[in-house]
Amino acid sequence: MLNRLLKPSNSITKRLFTMMSEKVAVDQPKVAATLVGNVNKKESKKNKLQVSLKTPKGTKDWADTDMVIREAIFSTLSNLFKKHGGVTIDTPVFELKEILAGKYGEDSKLIYDLKDQGGEICSLRYDLTVPFARYVAMNNIQNIKRYHIAKVYRRDQPAMTKGRMREFYQCDFDVAGSYEIMVPDAEILSILVEGLTSLGINDFKIKLNHRKILDGIFQIAGVKDEDVRKISSAVDKLDKSPWEVVKKEITEEKGQSEETANKIGEYVKLNGSLKEVHDILSKDEAILANEKAMSGLSEIATLITYAEAFQIEDFISFDLSLARGLDYYTGLIYEAVTAASAPPTDASELKKKAKTDDDASAYVGVGSIAAGGRYDNLVNMFAEASGKKSTQIPCIGVSFGVERIFSLIKQRAVAAAAIKPTATQVFVMAFGGGKDWTGYLPERMKVAKQLWEAGIETEYVYKSKANPRKQFDAAEKSGCPLAVILGKEEYLENKLRVKRLGQEFAEDDGELVDADKIVEVVQQKLSEINQDGVNDVIRLLKGL
Amino acid sequence: MLNRLLKPSNSITKRLFTMMSEKVAVDQPKVAATLVGNVNKKESKKNKLQVSLKTPKGTKDWADTDMVIREAIFSTLSNLFKKHGGVTIDTPVFELKEILAGKYGEDSKLIYDLKDQGGEICSLRYDLTVPFARYVAMNNIQNIKRYHIAKVYRRDQPAMTKGRMREFYQCDFDVAGSYEIMVPDAEILSILVEGLTSLGINDFKIKLNHRKILDGIFQIAGVKDEDVRKISSAVDKLDKSPWEVVKKEITEEKGQSEETANKIGEYVKLNGSLKEVHDILSKDEAILANEKAMSGLSEIATLITYAEAFQIEDFISFDLSLARGLDYYTGLIYEAVTAASAPPTDASELKKKAKTDDDASAYVGVGSIAAGGRYDNLVNMFAEASGKKSTQIPCIGVSFGVERIFSLIKQRAVAAAAIKPTATQVFVMAFGGGKDWTGYLPERMKVAKQLWEAGIETEYVYKSKANPRKQFDAAEKSGCPLAVILGKEEYLENKLRVKRLGQEFAEDDGELVDADKIVEVVQQKLSEINQDGVNDVIRLLKGL
Repeated sequence: MLNRLLKPSNSITKRLFTMMSEKVAVDQPKVAATLVGNVNKKESKKNKLQVSLKTPKGTKDWADTDMVIREAIFSTLSNLFKKHGGVTIDTPVFELKEILAGKYGEDSKLIYDLKDQGGEICSLRYDLTVPFARYVAMNNIQNIKRYHIAKVYRRDQPAMTKGRMREFYQCDFDVAGSYEIMVPDAEILSILVEGLTSLGINDFKIKLNHRKILDGIFQIAGVKDEDVRKISSAVDKLDKSPWEVVKKEITEEKGQSEETANKIGEYVKLNGSLKEVHDILSKDEAILANEKAMSGLSEIATLITYAEAFQIEDFISFDLSLARGLDYYTGLIYEAVTAASAPPTDASELKKKAKTDDDASAYVGVGSIAAGGRYDNLVNMFAEASGKKSTQIPCIGVSFGVERIFSLIKQRAVAAAAIKPTATQVFVMAFGGGKDWTGYLPERMKVAKQLWEAGIETEYVYKSKANPRKQFDAAEKSGCPLAVILGKEEYLENKLRVKRLGQEFAEDDGELVDADKIVEVVQQKLSEINQDGVNDVIRLLKGL
Repeated sequence: MLNRLLKPSNSITKRLFTMMSEKVAVDQPKVAATLVGNVNKKESKKNKLQVSLKTPKGTKDWADTDMVIREAIFSTLSNLFKKHGGVTIDTPVFELKEILAGKYGEDSKLIYDLKDQGGEICSLRYDLTVPFARYVAMNNIQNIKRYHIAKVYRRDQPAMTKGRMREFYQCDFDVAGSYEIMVPDAEILSILVEGLTSLGINDFKIKLNHRKILDGIFQIAGVKDEDVRKISSAVDKLDKSPWEVVKKEITEEKGQSEETANKIGEYVKLNGSLKEVHDILSKDEAILANEKAMSGLSEIATLITYAEAFQIEDFISFDLSLARGLDYYTGLIYEAVTAASAPPTDASELKKKAKTDDDASAYVGVGSIAAGGRYDNLVNMFAEASGKKSTQIPCIGVSFGVERIFSLIKQRAVAAAAIKPTATQVFVMAFGGGKDWTGYLPERMKVAKQLWEAGIETEYVYKSKANPRKQFDAAEKSGCPLAVILGKEEYLENKLRVKRLGQEFAEDDGELVDADKIVEVVQQKLSEINQDGVNDVIRLLKGL
């Protein structure tokens, strides 16, 4: 499906390689040596090589100020995970292909494979959950609360402006281990709420459902067991398509009767607070008679108590249309959505008018900004498939979609322009003049070195003789608050000048201090300056 | 390791699974559906799938305490880079294949390619330097100091115990922009020294050479221009092989005369301090007559002044045998090595006796722990190859090899056992008893929630009724210093007990406080406890 969309534009590449190989033939027997020629020769412009200066489709570079926001998101979330007793692990970016096989249902076609270059066949990880389950099974871990912040890969149709990428970050927190019903589940939901609110996102809903209840409903509606997953994945499209479209898929494409579809339709339209929907289902005779659904419903009753303890009920919308595409879920499933998650109301119109696929995909909404669920059989599947003793290690987790959250925060942030990408606090300058003056470059280096050793972020201009204007400009560009100035005469008397930077201090000449005292003076001034300063990034994250 | 301590109490979970597995159909016609079956079926052991439960060759998982060390290394280095005015960027883990082509000389064969699944042809990045140059060229950046901490990929023969992996982290700092000779170069060398010493590594040498001097020497020895890179890569092997072996390669394999080889041999044996080797070369008539060599030598003279300003001369060994494999270097090149970098003296004997490749490769030493150089033409090569206007953006950088540094720190660290993987500070417990007692689980949740909201790392046992022993065991396992206890009667009077944990407080009953005051009491106690505590990880990194 995707492959169609991507035309190989490799005529250029071919040309490039042809040229290189021509050169090889002429002068040199080995490839390596020729390539050097291209790198090191200034004359390489004679070779009209055409290389596309871009990142691969669906990927992007993160520039400096974007990274400041991204790192603030990461540190907010990892502090949250640590607060809940989490440890972190890391797994390789690719796994043996067989590890990923059969875990993602219809989405398996989106997995990136590595080329077979001899040796093992590998694929880039599609999420962090399957590698986590592999890790737990491989190391015979009985219980762990782990978080993992890392990139995952999906060969999906990208919609860059909405934060839907082929390479993107996930921030996952998962609890593995056998515990009482709904206890870790409730804490995971609390983490979801705490995570989003701590990032300044307050207008979200957690759509929540239970796979057992959903399976019960399908049973009640007359769906055969072997058809459950495909009907489930049709229902999963209800966030993007109206019921009529989904119904058509269920009946026409997936061969269910009109009656079955209508029965499903009745249930999946239900949503409301945990209590409301719980109460409706508790009075439904078909549900009461269905063992699976009742088992799910009793878990929901327990969840209600714990959700109250954590004061998170108001964020939760019990929504029977939520199905989640992935195969491995076995219990509670949930997705956090915001207003921006939904497609615009005139989406289909806009989509028709769109000139390119990329334009069109902009009208689908950013989707969920965090999601997860319970997957009680995945670890055991690995244990058994590898010939280990069967061990049931139930798991539940939540995954925050950083790219989508980042898009929301960046949209919010006109203030982003105020974020300075460097951490620089001090600029070391030298003022003097005259033909004979050296410009004090090694001397500036010595002062910078002293400040670095004290842990102070320090820069200076990479020039022997720099005029004052250029040094002030560079300092201003870095956004740092303090200058240490080596005056031509003053420095000879072992004195340095410390001066506040910024428009409001333009008339201030600063303070002349003993060179020996420079570190403590600077430290003192910086602590005064930064005392009451609310960090720009924190302000941005909190939506202040 | 931890897993042994906690046994699963999963009778409930078991019941749950029995119920689920009964409902799954016996056979299913479609692949997708079958795989679902495997995930959800308990009976999947009937399918004798044999999956290797391992990470791909040359990759590894990072477990919790290892991650604590790794993150401490990352934060030490990123603080260092920030101190020098660095900003950070991120690039995708894979690049268009044509971006990487022709940059790595003989090592190009080690590049991992992605499978052609339609669309663009991509490769995993081999280092962070080429993506950086692509980024600078693509965005028309005139100058930037950037750092980047990320994974890179090489299909090399792994030697895991030595920290030589196929997937590994690099921590790079690079300065792009036109500046005065040796000014950024000297600061990069200072960063190298500061980086290693701040990680507790003090017994290292920076081997340093200059490509222009090396090229001059090859010219003097009579090597033709087109043979320079292949002779250079032979010389590069001098850290692993004796001169006799390298000489044989130069003459027999690479077709140079005996006389040429001997001339090269004379020069590449030279090493000493910057000043010593500079003085020797300054008196060498052949060098004096060679334009290239003299241009390099005058840069070294400038470097000497700046290295003195930064007080890093003693770490530097000017070593004419250093050649560095990569094609793109044009000026200064350097590698930091420690005692552990060299192979053991009886390496070749041990290698012969080794039973596997992995054993054998263990005897090559960990190699350099940080390295880099100047590459003035790489950005321009991208600009020109993409049809942009030619722009010279000279660059210089250093790359820290985290895995190798990690190996050194971990070897050093018997103390690693003392590293606790969680950040947990408080364990919330409930003590009571009697048939009618609920176990206060929702109440513990409420207290935990209050502490989380105040930013305090808090856990509790995931069990309605847990006996005191189990709760203390869990707290001890987390290594946290404080317990907040809900006593059956005390809690009803709105009181909570705050107690220090640990052997030395075993007899201490703790303090009974108002439930409303719990957050401030806990904050107060934690600030007392952590006041004088030197962080274990810092201690470990500094080698204390």
